[in-house]
Amino acid sequence: MNATPRGAAGADEDPIFDVAADFISRHDFDRPTLVVDGARVAMQFDALSAGLGAARIHYAVKANSASKIIRTLKAKGARFFAASQGEIQLCLNEGVPGADITFGNTVKRPREIAFAHDCGIDLFAADAEAELVKIAANAPGARVYLRVMVENLDSNMPPSRKFGCGPAAVPGLLSFARAVGLHPVGLAFHVGGQTRKPVSWIPALDLVAELWHAACAAGHNMTVLNIGGGFPAAYGDAVDGPQAYAAAVAEAVFARFGPVDYLMAEPGRCLVAEAGHIAAEVLLISRKSADDLHRWVYLDIGRFSGLAETEDGAVRYQFATGHGGMSESGPCVLAGPSCDTADVLYEQRPVQLPLALREGDKIVIRNSGAYTSSYSSAGFNGFPPLDVIVL
Amino acid sequence: MNATPRGAAGADEDPIFDVAADFISRHDFDRPTLVVDGARVAMQFDALSAGLGAARIHYAVKANSASKIIRTLKAKGARFFAASQGEIQLCLNEGVPGADITFGNTVKRPREIAFAHDCGIDLFAADAEAELVKIAANAPGARVYLRVMVENLDSNMPPSRKFGCGPAAVPGLLSFARAVGLHPVGLAFHVGGQTRKPVSWIPALDLVAELWHAACAAGHNMTVLNIGGGFPAAYGDAVDGPQAYAAAVAEAVFARFGPVDYLMAEPGRCLVAEAGHIAAEVLLISRKSADDLHRWVYLDIGRFSGLAETEDGAVRYQFATGHGGMSESGPCVLAGPSCDTADVLYEQRPVQLPLALREGDKIVIRNSGAYTSSYSSAGFNGFPPLDVIVL
Repeated sequence: MNATPRGAAGADEDPIFDVAADFISRHDFDRPTLVVDGARVAMQFDALSAGLGAARIHYAVKANSASKIIRTLKAKGARFFAASQGEIQLCLNEGVPGADITFGNTVKRPREIAFAHDCGIDLFAADAEAELVKIAANAPGARVYLRVMVENLDSNMPPSRKFGCGPAAVPGLLSFARAVGLHPVGLAFHVGGQTRKPVSWIPALDLVAELWHAACAAGHNMTVLNIGGGFPAAYGDAVDGPQAYAAAVAEAVFARFGPVDYLMAEPGRCLVAEAGHIAAEVLLISRKSADDLHRWVYLDIGRFSGLAETEDGAVRYQFATGHGGMSESGPCVLAGPSCDTADVLYEQRPVQLPLALREGDKIVIRNSGAYTSSYSSAGFNGFPPLDVIVL
Repeated sequence: MNATPRGAAGADEDPIFDVAADFISRHDFDRPTLVVDGARVAMQFDALSAGLGAARIHYAVKANSASKIIRTLKAKGARFFAASQGEIQLCLNEGVPGADITFGNTVKRPREIAFAHDCGIDLFAADAEAELVKIAANAPGARVYLRVMVENLDSNMPPSRKFGCGPAAVPGLLSFARAVGLHPVGLAFHVGGQTRKPVSWIPALDLVAELWHAACAAGHNMTVLNIGGGFPAAYGDAVDGPQAYAAAVAEAVFARFGPVDYLMAEPGRCLVAEAGHIAAEVLLISRKSADDLHRWVYLDIGRFSGLAETEDGAVRYQFATGHGGMSESGPCVLAGPSCDTADVLYEQRPVQLPLALREGDKIVIRNSGAYTSSYSSAGFNGFPPLDVIVL
């Protein structure tokens, strides 16, 4: 971190309601910096926990792997979902016991499975025979859950066909897991990132419940139901708060599955997105010609230094400037600082920004605590990765 | 690097014609690794130089910023195009004098302009009044060239509107540069990455030549013409070799501009792409259902760990496996190792791979020396950035 305190916020600052925004308003930054309020992460965890009831929360480390966030969530009683040996190591570094970590990636390198097994991790995801073979060889006797492919038309990041087996493959894979000496203990699915309405979970829950009850009837001891993530963050569109949303999902789960021995969820975004904002800077404002209807506003951060989720408008961030309501607004195409033609944000649907905006102005990218620092490139165009400060 | 030598290549390996492919065939890698043949980079430089004649080559460091590549090109007499202070520093680290570097990004942070100026860099790009003001304040009296927006329908990465001023803005910006104490010395344009045919340069050259001659007639001392990059690499589609391609471009330039005091080009891709291949590994092969027509092949590298240019099929890499012509092929959707639904490659137009392909097999991503390591994320999903070995 390299944040320089400055004087009190000017009277024309946007209203500030949170610690991270306040910190940003009182400091200058020499490079784009994500400031996360750890207490707000804890608050989101509490709200989600209250809504989910009996379900255990495994934080999806990939959303933001800052060590203080892992520590904060561990202190709250969270468990963790790791995508790789690297993420497992991050959790172990903060004292998380292996038993509290799932290796939830359905695509694993054999030696990473062995590493996880050696660390005491005993719960693995799979969606294919070949993956079960790898797990059986490198974590003999481990518990596995099968990820099932589901559809969802109401997610900003639909689940796609990349993860999960087709529903018809479930019975065979459960038997196969047993045949190779594993313990097939349950099912998993994911409704897709940023699923705005709890009602959108229903088709997936109906499908998975049918598979679940069939597996029980076939004699499998089903104890783990992993409902994945997809709980939305507030990016500007109206979404339910985490407690109400989670309660609606939990109710729909209970109605279909009844009590489950180990009900687990893997939220990432909804725990950290709203807890953090990025302090960025305007590097250049221009019009391409005198009669251009919109301005081009070039920031010191772009698609390859943290704002990857702007691709196809999947996440539409809100921007705050020191000009607030003091200035009329006009349409802008935003772009990052790299010499890359693809490093353009929201060209199809320009952003409204104050006409008074100038080079050197601070601009705050709100609710950007999730999936920003983690996507950031190692040094594209010579720019360092997004800096992170967790308060 | 962590490459373990192994025995001689098996008889069923693909034919190997280059040093990087040979090195890959003789070593095992514990993570995805880009292997670049430095001598091949030098060879590409010679070929492009021979074609371009009098033009000076400024290597676009962003294509691959490995220190040995910078050293190799410096030894050949190359100059450099830096996008940021970070890239300037990489060049300085290898002993490149500031006078041989242009700060070619049209979007610069003021203190980075001052840093460049202090390093002896005297040639800056701009496309807007506000950028000229910043340059005048931080590099007083510097030489600047104006980047002009051009169109090109034949590029795999069209130039977009992000960079360059509209043609009508050029006369005013040249005068403005002079008014703020800078030396407006020329014009620049970029036809877009991977422009397959030299003939596609003609509309851009016609436009810029008209602006150039008008500027001369208006009394500006035009000495620098920067024709940018866009020289293609061989990704599978037939493209001219670098010498023939560059000669055709140089001839078209000369026909429109006559002799130019300082004619410069900024190639990146065509110098390094073909010199490098990525050694990757198959982590999982599956079908989503018994009657699926294609397989899903999961690699240990994906969009966020080096293959960013697969987005929208902009670059269609060729893959080589140890099975070569020994096995029938079938259609595959490729995917990276991350728990990210967007980390899928070529879903719209599947890749043909041998039916004999298995988990653990090495797979070589050919001609991938450009824009792979540079885009790689710092640690998305806990995976380290793409490793690079320059031979």
